[in-house]
Amino acid sequence: MTQKGRLAKPNQQTTMFSMPRLASENMTLRGEEIDPRLYQRYSGVLFLSITGQSMTDITPSLQDYPYTVTLASRWQDNDAYGHINNVMYYSFFDTAVNRFLIEQGGLDIQNSQVVAYVVSSQCQYVAPAAYPETIYVGLRVIKVGRSSVTYGLSVYAGDAKRRVAHGQFVHVFVNRQSDNAVPIPSRVREALDSITEGF
Amino acid sequence: MTQKGRLAKPNQQTTMFSMPRLASENMTLRGEEIDPRLYQRYSGVLFLSITGQSMTDITPSLQDYPYTVTLASRWQDNDAYGHINNVMYYSFFDTAVNRFLIEQGGLDIQNSQVVAYVVSSQCQYVAPAAYPETIYVGLRVIKVGRSSVTYGLSVYAGDAKRRVAHGQFVHVFVNRQSDNAVPIPSRVREALDSITEGF
Amino acid sequence: MTQKGRLAKPNQQTTMFSMPRLASENMTLRGEEIDPRLYQRYSGVLFLSITGQSMTDITPSLQDYPYTVTLASRWQDNDAYGHINNVMYYSFFDTAVNRFLIEQGGLDIQNSQVVAYVVSSQCQYVAPAAYPETIYVGLRVIKVGRSSVTYGLSVYAGDAKRRVAHGQFVHVFVNRQSDNAVPIPSRVREALDSITEGF
Amino acid sequence: MTQKGRLAKPNQQTTMFSMPRLASENMTLRGEEIDPRLYQRYSGVLFLSITGQSMTDITPSLQDYPYTVTLASRWQDNDAYGHINNVMYYSFFDTAVNRFLIEQGGLDIQNSQVVAYVVSSQCQYVAPAAYPETIYVGLRVIKVGRSSVTYGLSVYAGDAKRRVAHGQFVHVFVNRQSDNAVPIPSRVREALDSITEGF
Repeated sequence: MTQKGRLAKPNQQTTMFSMPRLASENMTLRGEEIDPRLYQRYSGVLFLSITGQSMTDITPSLQDYPYTVTLASRWQDNDAYGHINNVMYYSFFDTAVNRFLIEQGGLDIQNSQVVAYVVSSQCQYVAPAAYPETIYVGLRVIKVGRSSVTYGLSVYAGDAKRRVAHGQFVHVFVNRQSDNAVPIPSRVREALDSITEGF
Repeated sequence: MTQKGRLAKPNQQTTMFSMPRLASENMTLRGEEIDPRLYQRYSGVLFLSITGQSMTDITPSLQDYPYTVTLASRWQDNDAYGHINNVMYYSFFDTAVNRFLIEQGGLDIQNSQVVAYVVSSQCQYVAPAAYPETIYVGLRVIKVGRSSVTYGLSVYAGDAKRRVAHGQFVHVFVNRQSDNAVPIPSRVREALDSITEGF
Repeated sequence: MTQKGRLAKPNQQTTMFSMPRLASENMTLRGEEIDPRLYQRYSGVLFLSITGQSMTDITPSLQDYPYTVTLASRWQDNDAYGHINNVMYYSFFDTAVNRFLIEQGGLDIQNSQVVAYVVSSQCQYVAPAAYPETIYVGLRVIKVGRSSVTYGLSVYAGDAKRRVAHGQFVHVFVNRQSDNAVPIPSRVREALDSITEGF
Repeated sequence: MTQKGRLAKPNQQTTMFSMPRLASENMTLRGEEIDPRLYQRYSGVLFLSITGQSMTDITPSLQDYPYTVTLASRWQDNDAYGHINNVMYYSFFDTAVNRFLIEQGGLDIQNSQVVAYVVSSQCQYVAPAAYPETIYVGLRVIKVGRSSVTYGLSVYAGDAKRRVAHGQFVHVFVNRQSDNAVPIPSRVREALDSITEGF
């Protein structure tokens, strides 16, 4: 059977975040702002403390995401330092987002006239992961525009599903032949709206 | 939870092959011998007919393998022709074999003094597969030597678990520091013996 | 012969940017701000016009970068849409940055006690590229801290060396055993300083 | 400028092998036949001695190949053991073969009605290589059939261009829409004939 991503049930409680956004994947550590004192990469739970309080209560966990995908890590994912290479996380993003578009939005990557191109992506790495750990990707939509959509993603790893990375990913929908931006097809838009979540 | 490969139960019937080896992964199509009339890549069931009889009854299916691993395909696996690229199948082999060695043979890829290097590999591609199909890898051991082991593998894809590729993969066990071949550690050898299968 | 990255000569004119930073790789298009009217992905020269004037005079070209690396693209880089996959650009970043650290900073990826981990990365894609085009990566350092460094990169493709992507990449230097952040080794810092450039 | 593969001049002496084929890439070590005493993976020059004499005089060097491609290795090529992963060699094969078909045979991977699918591949690994070493691929054609072609390849690495791997790769030419095997187009066949070499 083809594995499918998991879509949270409508009655699932995904709005646990009433506090201001702090460590979610769209409150990112910009390159310029990284301070090694604040950013303790391998401290596990409490990795960022810009407000002096623990981030654990406001960092999304996998079940906070409306759509999730489980991926087996691969031997080749590990790099010379023994961790899953930073590059591979973008492959996890790509894989999760397109699986969502195929399953929920009717995207046919072989034949659809309208396809989605990545125009921007970013990732923050908060802890290492390594093959053969299982990888879990949580996906939500942050914002839908006329032709573009911004996704928010987090990557979790291993038995404890610890959060290892988070990032964003922007798709622009284009006509496959002309490469011109086009309005998001209605079926895709409905799917995107169904996982738009403001935590 | 970390996904694990599946080890067939001892009482599983895996010896359905009393006929001579014909289309199993170690009766391969050598480069020199390929004849397009015999090798109908996209005909589905009956792809090879060197004896004039159907191969379907002697082609191993996933459950014929003593160890199996399930992998999610990734967007990046598909190449410009829309299929999972031939290169990726070797990543599937690598991933399945090392997962077996880690789970069943106690291999610690970070710390073990004895690790396994690939010295030879081969693959025959009998049908296309494409992301987002689920990938299944069947693994057995064909032969164990003093320092080396030859694995037999088949790759299956999609809901019908159709067989898309098969191949071999040879590991030599070496001392990590010296790179010299060493005898296979006893725990690994036991694990390898447990999935040695002569179909 | 091992190919080496190219380090610009000290007398090279690399300070052509007296205008305010606009379209350089660190004035990025954040996901939230993308506007399809402004962002004409395939229009070639003039792709962004937030100020009403052409960006061509302030977009860095390959020779504006103090360190450059040439990479052959690979068949596998192209994805199902026939372009170099967005994921691969981060591999280009990784490859260029580490080659610089090895060649100019004395990094020994097998033995150095202090190595560099990626903690943040981002990329904006401004035009497609495809195998078999040659890839050129321009690298500079934007900011060096006590333990971390922020790199700015642009990717160029093909005969005309058109600019296809740009981004940032943040390394934190850590002790390989403890994974704790450590001060940047002096030889590495010197190398980083030598390509720090404020365009 | 787009890097191109190098085609040997017609007057180049490439027929130095009057001795019987021994260690060339099509006299491979089949999985079943590997004997660790004969196969000294890291001994450098003399790695195989099945006839009791040195193989060095009959092992092809890069300049023996009629077509060669130079590739930069990438950070991501190295695996957890610090070597270029076995999988990547097939990417080197794929990249070299398709570049030849594009440059010399007129293959248009976006538009050609007839494209080439890999149906079989194999590789033997005789020494390790590692990023950031430069990679050199030597390519020849062993045999051309009606619809299929068998390539012979060797991979060389580093300043000394030491031979690190060799293998074979079989393409079948198919109609892109129907996936049916078709005769090799005449322009491609001419190109293939021009690098058919029997060492």
